[in-house]
Amino acid sequence: MDAKEYLKKTSALMDGPIKTYIPDEEPMRLIEASRQYPYAGGKRMRPAMVLAACGAVGGDKTKAMPLAAAIEYIHNFTLIHDDYMDGDDMRRGMKTIHVAYDMPTSILAGDALFAKAFQIIAELDVPSDKMREILKFVSKAVWDLARGQQFDIENEHKLVSEERYTETIFLKTSVLFAAAAAGGALCGGADEKTVDAINKYALDMGLGFQMFDDYLGVAGDSSKTGKSVGNDLRKGKCTLMVTYTLENLKDEAKLAKFKSVLNNMEATDAEVREAMEIMREIGAIAYNKKAAEDKIASAKAYLDILPPSEDKDFMIALADYAINRDV
Amino acid sequence: MDAKEYLKKTSALMDGPIKTYIPDEEPMRLIEASRQYPYAGGKRMRPAMVLAACGAVGGDKTKAMPLAAAIEYIHNFTLIHDDYMDGDDMRRGMKTIHVAYDMPTSILAGDALFAKAFQIIAELDVPSDKMREILKFVSKAVWDLARGQQFDIENEHKLVSEERYTETIFLKTSVLFAAAAAGGALCGGADEKTVDAINKYALDMGLGFQMFDDYLGVAGDSSKTGKSVGNDLRKGKCTLMVTYTLENLKDEAKLAKFKSVLNNMEATDAEVREAMEIMREIGAIAYNKKAAEDKIASAKAYLDILPPSEDKDFMIALADYAINRDV
Repeated sequence: MDAKEYLKKTSALMDGPIKTYIPDEEPMRLIEASRQYPYAGGKRMRPAMVLAACGAVGGDKTKAMPLAAAIEYIHNFTLIHDDYMDGDDMRRGMKTIHVAYDMPTSILAGDALFAKAFQIIAELDVPSDKMREILKFVSKAVWDLARGQQFDIENEHKLVSEERYTETIFLKTSVLFAAAAAGGALCGGADEKTVDAINKYALDMGLGFQMFDDYLGVAGDSSKTGKSVGNDLRKGKCTLMVTYTLENLKDEAKLAKFKSVLNNMEATDAEVREAMEIMREIGAIAYNKKAAEDKIASAKAYLDILPPSEDKDFMIALADYAINRDV
Repeated sequence: MDAKEYLKKTSALMDGPIKTYIPDEEPMRLIEASRQYPYAGGKRMRPAMVLAACGAVGGDKTKAMPLAAAIEYIHNFTLIHDDYMDGDDMRRGMKTIHVAYDMPTSILAGDALFAKAFQIIAELDVPSDKMREILKFVSKAVWDLARGQQFDIENEHKLVSEERYTETIFLKTSVLFAAAAAGGALCGGADEKTVDAINKYALDMGLGFQMFDDYLGVAGDSSKTGKSVGNDLRKGKCTLMVTYTLENLKDEAKLAKFKSVLNNMEATDAEVREAMEIMREIGAIAYNKKAAEDKIASAKAYLDILPPSEDKDFMIALADYAINRDV
């Protein structure tokens, strides 16, 4: 099973449906702004997760398609608000919403997508008791996403603990993956035990995915990732590599050198290379990679509850892909 | 029935419960920001509407209290975002959230309250089919609120039609009142016909309420309203008085004079008085007041479907209060 192929297939499958939930309506400026991200395509990992989880529990995937769109809208709503908060001007080669339109339109387009997601959930063609469970997962995820983004902002220019780091990526990445997976399973009629296992799979998958992302930022090939290697260090981005180094490095001179690079945009390339060498020596880079791999192994184990199927294979392949990619 | 007394009573009744849904949790800065508006008290008209509608259909009001809190959270979420978009520094004698905290915290506190409202709805102690209907009303209302605020921003410094004016206040004020009332009725177990009547009552009540608000801004006693009379004209605020005048005034000289005041912060007091006299002469102020009264009469008529009760009396009294107040 090639996860990338499956992703491409479901992304194409969602392309039509995802455009059916935001009809032409005044004010069109708001409608157009809210459509920009969801209509633009992209990997659509979360919709794929909804559909795969539904299929893997033996459900009818067409019933999960509206939820797949709703989860993507929620993801897009957070991107729009985050882009404005973070002052990012471009995303996927397009101007971000507050740049292409204006500040109020970006806030309202986010709010509108958020509302639309819950309108879609209210109309899901599943028994109302199942719909209620889906609503619990999704609304809790959005609450947690706001907490995660607040953590992320508060973490800036600070050296936080490994625990705090893990909590932040859990809230920012894992919970929406988990709402997608658990929601898909509920659309498919899964029982509580299966939903719980699929939820835990996605939570760990999200953690492993983000940890490996951090790893790529340091150990990856910048010609592929598009990030200049080591820039995360200059920006003081909190990663397991950094927290591990800070907690385990006993050599005072090296520690001072390492800290002088962190959160220092003026650090030279030579200084950054030295900081990376310090992390490598002490085993921080290997520690980070291992942590990502452990989370993925843990994630996959939860899927043992499922009978064999192509959708289950995708869920496994997606977890493997999370830690076997160069971009 | 004294609507103000009933409002005071239900506001006090909600004071405890409304503080139970946002537990202490990290990051506390976000939690505290999201609590500021809902904890501050105020008229709490929307929660009162939820409880009254539930009681008026013979329901158990304690079952509607979580929804009353959820609707107030949604109202507060829109206030937080609107305050930031509109650049307002103060609300109810307190610093607004983006001023007391910062921009990202204000956006996230709004998002968090929004999410919390849907978490509360997911946990409502009503049959899941009723919960689904409530979710439809509330999520549609939030979608419409975003549209209304976008209209409001786009209307600025423009002379819009009466139709566009009515659409804007419908979206900005009526739909959440209606979600409150219809949601309360659904919590109380009302049938579809009753829910529909109560929904229509609240939609018209919201229109009448807002139209009378505009009227007070021109014809009211500024020592009571706290607004300097006529300032709405300087700010170019769109009201029925203005649209009526623009559509009906045939005297070219007067029309030119009137337009020179609209949307002109430099207009002198004498010029504003003259513009108000023009509106009075042509009947625009009376037209606006009459329109508000007509909406309220229409709103009350929908309640004929309900048997006599104290809660029904409040719903009638609240409608009367909407057009019989000096502040």
